[in-house]
Amino acid sequence: MDHQEGENDIESTQGAWRERERERNGSGFYQNEMGAGSAREPLLRKRTTNTTSQMAIIGAKVSPIESLDYEIVENDLFKQDWRSRKKVQIFQYIFLKWTLALLIGLATGLVGFFNNIAVENIAGFKLLLTSNLMLEHRYFTAFLAFGGINLILAASAATLCAYIAPAAAGSGIPEVKAYLNGVDAHSILAPSTLFVKIFGSIGGVSAGFVLGKEGPMVHTGACIANLLGQGGSRKYHLTWKWLRYFKNDRDRRDLITCGSAAGVAAAFRAPVGGVLFALEEAASWWRSALLWRTFFTTAVVAVVLRSLIQYCRSGRCGLFGEGGLIMFDISSSISTYSTSDLIAIIILGVIGGVFGALFNYLLDKILRIYSVINEKGAPFKILLTMTISFITSCCAYGVPWLAKCTPCPTDLKEQCPTIGRSGNFKNFQCPPGHYNDLASLFLNTQDDAIRNLFSGGTENEFHMSTLFIFFTAIYCLGLVTYGVAVPSGLFIPVILAGSTYGRIVGTLLGPISDLDAGLFALLGAASFLGGTMRMTVSVCVILLELTNDLLILPLVMLVLLISKTVADGFNKGVYDQIVIMKGLPYMEAHAEPHMRHLVAGDVVSGPLITFSGVENVGTIMQALRLTGHNGFPVVDEPPFSDAPELVGLVLRYHLLVLLKGKMFTKERVRTGDGEVLKRFGASGFAKAGSGKGPKFDELSISEEEMDMFIDLHPITNTSPYTVVETMSLAKAAVLFRELGLRHLCVVPKTPGRPPIVGILTRHDFMPEHVLGLFPRLHLNR
Amino acid sequence: MDHQEGENDIESTQGAWRERERERNGSGFYQNEMGAGSAREPLLRKRTTNTTSQMAIIGAKVSPIESLDYEIVENDLFKQDWRSRKKVQIFQYIFLKWTLALLIGLATGLVGFFNNIAVENIAGFKLLLTSNLMLEHRYFTAFLAFGGINLILAASAATLCAYIAPAAAGSGIPEVKAYLNGVDAHSILAPSTLFVKIFGSIGGVSAGFVLGKEGPMVHTGACIANLLGQGGSRKYHLTWKWLRYFKNDRDRRDLITCGSAAGVAAAFRAPVGGVLFALEEAASWWRSALLWRTFFTTAVVAVVLRSLIQYCRSGRCGLFGEGGLIMFDISSSISTYSTSDLIAIIILGVIGGVFGALFNYLLDKILRIYSVINEKGAPFKILLTMTISFITSCCAYGVPWLAKCTPCPTDLKEQCPTIGRSGNFKNFQCPPGHYNDLASLFLNTQDDAIRNLFSGGTENEFHMSTLFIFFTAIYCLGLVTYGVAVPSGLFIPVILAGSTYGRIVGTLLGPISDLDAGLFALLGAASFLGGTMRMTVSVCVILLELTNDLLILPLVMLVLLISKTVADGFNKGVYDQIVIMKGLPYMEAHAEPHMRHLVAGDVVSGPLITFSGVENVGTIMQALRLTGHNGFPVVDEPPFSDAPELVGLVLRYHLLVLLKGKMFTKERVRTGDGEVLKRFGASGFAKAGSGKGPKFDELSISEEEMDMFIDLHPITNTSPYTVVETMSLAKAAVLFRELGLRHLCVVPKTPGRPPIVGILTRHDFMPEHVLGLFPRLHLNR
Repeated sequence: MDHQEGENDIESTQGAWRERERERNGSGFYQNEMGAGSAREPLLRKRTTNTTSQMAIIGAKVSPIESLDYEIVENDLFKQDWRSRKKVQIFQYIFLKWTLALLIGLATGLVGFFNNIAVENIAGFKLLLTSNLMLEHRYFTAFLAFGGINLILAASAATLCAYIAPAAAGSGIPEVKAYLNGVDAHSILAPSTLFVKIFGSIGGVSAGFVLGKEGPMVHTGACIANLLGQGGSRKYHLTWKWLRYFKNDRDRRDLITCGSAAGVAAAFRAPVGGVLFALEEAASWWRSALLWRTFFTTAVVAVVLRSLIQYCRSGRCGLFGEGGLIMFDISSSISTYSTSDLIAIIILGVIGGVFGALFNYLLDKILRIYSVINEKGAPFKILLTMTISFITSCCAYGVPWLAKCTPCPTDLKEQCPTIGRSGNFKNFQCPPGHYNDLASLFLNTQDDAIRNLFSGGTENEFHMSTLFIFFTAIYCLGLVTYGVAVPSGLFIPVILAGSTYGRIVGTLLGPISDLDAGLFALLGAASFLGGTMRMTVSVCVILLELTNDLLILPLVMLVLLISKTVADGFNKGVYDQIVIMKGLPYMEAHAEPHMRHLVAGDVVSGPLITFSGVENVGTIMQALRLTGHNGFPVVDEPPFSDAPELVGLVLRYHLLVLLKGKMFTKERVRTGDGEVLKRFGASGFAKAGSGKGPKFDELSISEEEMDMFIDLHPITNTSPYTVVETMSLAKAAVLFRELGLRHLCVVPKTPGRPPIVGILTRHDFMPEHVLGLFPRLHLNR
Repeated sequence: MDHQEGENDIESTQGAWRERERERNGSGFYQNEMGAGSAREPLLRKRTTNTTSQMAIIGAKVSPIESLDYEIVENDLFKQDWRSRKKVQIFQYIFLKWTLALLIGLATGLVGFFNNIAVENIAGFKLLLTSNLMLEHRYFTAFLAFGGINLILAASAATLCAYIAPAAAGSGIPEVKAYLNGVDAHSILAPSTLFVKIFGSIGGVSAGFVLGKEGPMVHTGACIANLLGQGGSRKYHLTWKWLRYFKNDRDRRDLITCGSAAGVAAAFRAPVGGVLFALEEAASWWRSALLWRTFFTTAVVAVVLRSLIQYCRSGRCGLFGEGGLIMFDISSSISTYSTSDLIAIIILGVIGGVFGALFNYLLDKILRIYSVINEKGAPFKILLTMTISFITSCCAYGVPWLAKCTPCPTDLKEQCPTIGRSGNFKNFQCPPGHYNDLASLFLNTQDDAIRNLFSGGTENEFHMSTLFIFFTAIYCLGLVTYGVAVPSGLFIPVILAGSTYGRIVGTLLGPISDLDAGLFALLGAASFLGGTMRMTVSVCVILLELTNDLLILPLVMLVLLISKTVADGFNKGVYDQIVIMKGLPYMEAHAEPHMRHLVAGDVVSGPLITFSGVENVGTIMQALRLTGHNGFPVVDEPPFSDAPELVGLVLRYHLLVLLKGKMFTKERVRTGDGEVLKRFGASGFAKAGSGKGPKFDELSISEEEMDMFIDLHPITNTSPYTVVETMSLAKAAVLFRELGLRHLCVVPKTPGRPPIVGILTRHDFMPEHVLGLFPRLHLNR
């Protein structure tokens, strides 16, 4: 896989070339970076003998040529210093690979735990305070305290987000997905994003917003992986030398896949679910070796979380008390179901799919409205967040007044009503011995609310009206909350709304089905998850791991299948939708139908800029300045070859490194590879992370040097993938995507023309600040 | 993906070309199908204008060209009749896709259930008879009955296997894996194989062999999928017309992936485990759409099994009584473990890995010895099977005499001793109130033996000596049983040996660990599975689904990781090993290191046979007769083009169809595509399943016709993937494998040479009868 180069990042400077590039981008999926048009019409010479020996020159040049080759070749280790220090390196590489996986698991587990502790304590304190004030009948003070704390938390989270890292807003899953698809905008995984994601998420969840910590945890895991893979800072000499093996797109992507899996594992305490999530939703390219490593990472997360929760059991973590690897133990012990149960479940799935698709549709509309507000600047973002926080507080505190007090059930092991701690039966304004069922859902931590909804044998705990009110409120609040400037996951709103919906359906269909209301709640949550996120296996496994009930597996599968199928009839999954809306240049796995009617040669147009094997420095500087191209074909001409021939492809990044090194010659002669290797070392051309590395503006080339020459052969990738110009564009696209390429050379079919016609490349359309809060919507359909 | 063509199958006739081909195959990974050497040195003509329009000729010819294109393009539907009847077809395709998935699930579920019923009844009857005879102290008669029934069952299974379908012997997982990798030997999935696999497996398991039904179930599922995808027989006019969409390698492969997942789901009653198995072990190419469909299939299997088991609960299925989706409910309820427990588990994992690797090593040796015996013919296969059956019977009946009688524990809910039914405490020769613990393991159905070993709170049920004896016996019997001529899975022997080993370790490490012996048994099974099969996530999920205990997940993960890592230090996984041993031309996901030193041009040699766009019939016939090539490049020469240029690739299969249709012309003229389409229809060139379709020997071309011409343009794939001859071979291999190609054209780098240098293709090395019982070992390393 190859990522977009640094200059596509939102934070990089925008040059004149950027404008030009944009204009050309509108038409098709592929940007036509270059086309036929250079004046150099090659002289034809017959070359009848195949000069390549059995140990061919090009294939044997594994170093540094192959190390410059940024495309997928099995093991990146083998690309570097193949001939020397082989065994030591293999050991280093493997050791480091697993160490990093371990560290990612540890760090993500710790962050996940910290997040839990912080949220439970802050939210717990808030709820305790409110309940105590209400016990004293100081209802307005209670509201002030409740709303005030929420507002302060929301404002701080939004401030962090708006000023430090706009990219940290939202779920983060679409961004991680795009990164793993090859969109290398470094702010996605920057350390500042990590910081804001962790603390913003704590603030957001504690503030009582209808949002979850799951999406942000995925993003956090990915950021941690990126940070660890980068190995500290080169500025402070903290870089671990061995980490140079990971300074390439492929290994970096593998680490980030592990990180996102670890994030899910930490959020849901679902290790297998994490692996499947990474496989099903996050990753664009997958290898079976990755399964193994991801699995290890999530296992580490599970062990870390488990031990820490064990430690907390004894009350050493403040208000964080209960817990375990299984969050919602519904233990329904239902092992039989009849045909009428299945009919009820099918109905549930169909309606759930419709609601899920509607959620996506409305979310799209609301995000478009929000983007107008958010575009106005950071203060507006904060204001919007505070408004939503106020509305949420009003709902959470105000709506429960509508509910009647219910007498506590008599045959109860639990405390009822519960005061000052999260529990099933909230006292709220009710007299002793009574509870307010709406408050039990609203004025509670999210985990407890879900646990309440999932709980079995509690058919009569919630009134029908309560469920309807809660469903409507959560569905709407979930929609209006996602676009605000705090890290916000969609899982929890969807699960909350879904399980309420499930309970409603369960109650309404009571006459035809004997299933438990808690089980219906679980199935309702599954139907909403299937309807919005369109994940199947991973959601199924996550729900299994959350509820520890394997017996319901066939039912969950059935519901997921139905709701996904129904929702797919309406629109795309929510993450795909956000990816499109954010203008992230995501590349789909399949070629688009219109490509079948085109050939590769049809879409390459415009001036093709090629370099000679030994090129004038000034020419290169001009090409780099005027264009944003990341790859340039190198064409050897006499006297370096018999006829003009394509040597390969040289990358902008490598050109910048070479130019910075100033290996210039006065004459047009080849300097040889050894020289370059000696000067830069094996890792000199390794791709720096997070948009680091040389920039064009940092180069200072004197007038005199401009007239000198530079040998491009040592840094040319001599084995670029090529297609003939008459190749079906659809097939070229499949090749491009399957191999995760960044540049695909189009060569002429017939002789007698320049040795390269053009280059197919990725669409690098990405509006500025697009990773922030939808400031402008450039649609990329 | 592209499969080997029919003539590579073991049952096809072997021509002279076959010998020639073999000679050339020995050297490298890629067979050099063709090379530079034809005498036609092209005339060079300059062609300066790009003649391709925006709606290019080649890309627009989606029909029938794209339908002939056997390489991966997203949706095969879109390849066929794109312009006409589009919407109806999309509906048909999608409807059929899901219907087939449903049918595969239903059929596999039914077969799995039938298998269970049959085995439980036959084995139950056998055990009942033996126990009753022993109760009457007729010990020798009991042995005769026991051994005799075993021998008869074994002999029948072996006879079926040896005479009807040798390919049905063994696990079948390596064959399915190879098929999904592109090895299209039709006997792998032939209906006869399916028949023998079902009944042979029932015979083998009932005969008391130390083998499982899991591997055979996977193979059965794949066979069912193949049969359904083929849609009955064309001979009896039973072909469903819509099924033509599935007459290509890609859709067929998808179906078979679903089938193998369904097999695992049916064998272990583990739907999620089935999906993961297909992903981790079976499939070579994976798409996320497949996850979705596989999941649906396994869900159907789960529902079918569940309903049928429900039906059987009331005793309507003979001796098949207990059961449910969870087979071994260990319910250990252990949620805490200390550091010393972890140390015990690490030790368990390390030793388990060593034992697993040793198992693979010994299995390899034993299979090599067996192959000499099996090679001698079917009677020897049967004799070998009967010998092993006799040894197994002796062990099962004889060894328990070594064990002392143990008084039944007093505080027991279960019956003790159990007579005449499978249970934890077998009476055997013991007086009333006592049980024989070795007989409880040996003289029991496999499921019950595993359930006994996994059972918690039974530390003192088995003596240490019993466990040691059982472990040694099962380990050795498992090794010697696999190679015999019955369908035999490896899961059960490995789980049996592993869980016994786990119990031993648990007992020995009792002083440092508080974990339950049943839990240790489970972890021991995990360590053996990790050590032999090297699967991780799928084994983990399968064990979870078997035991319904999510709390042990981190421990299982840890054990699997350790044992796999340790075992990987010694050798390959058992399935990979068998694939190699059988000489199946499996293509690894990564390029081999030596390829880095070569370029694509280095490995193409030998005479390259090309056809003209309009070719003489005699020339084609000769090429087809003399070579085994499955693809021939088509080169247009004047007057059909300005200069010699590569039109594309034509497949042997399509040539045969065209020759059979006899669309010949007297003159060298183009006939046009429309004619061909009209004659053959959209499905005329669809690849027939299971080695059907025209054969070379069936062609009858008269002398007169030999001199006529045939236009190859309509059947030429005009967009073959190409690499330049100077491309690194490693990168060419990556392209080849990632896109699942069958032919990769190597084009010259410099002009002035023929437009194609050679073709890279798959190694089609596969010795005759290799799918049978290792008759000859051609190693493919």
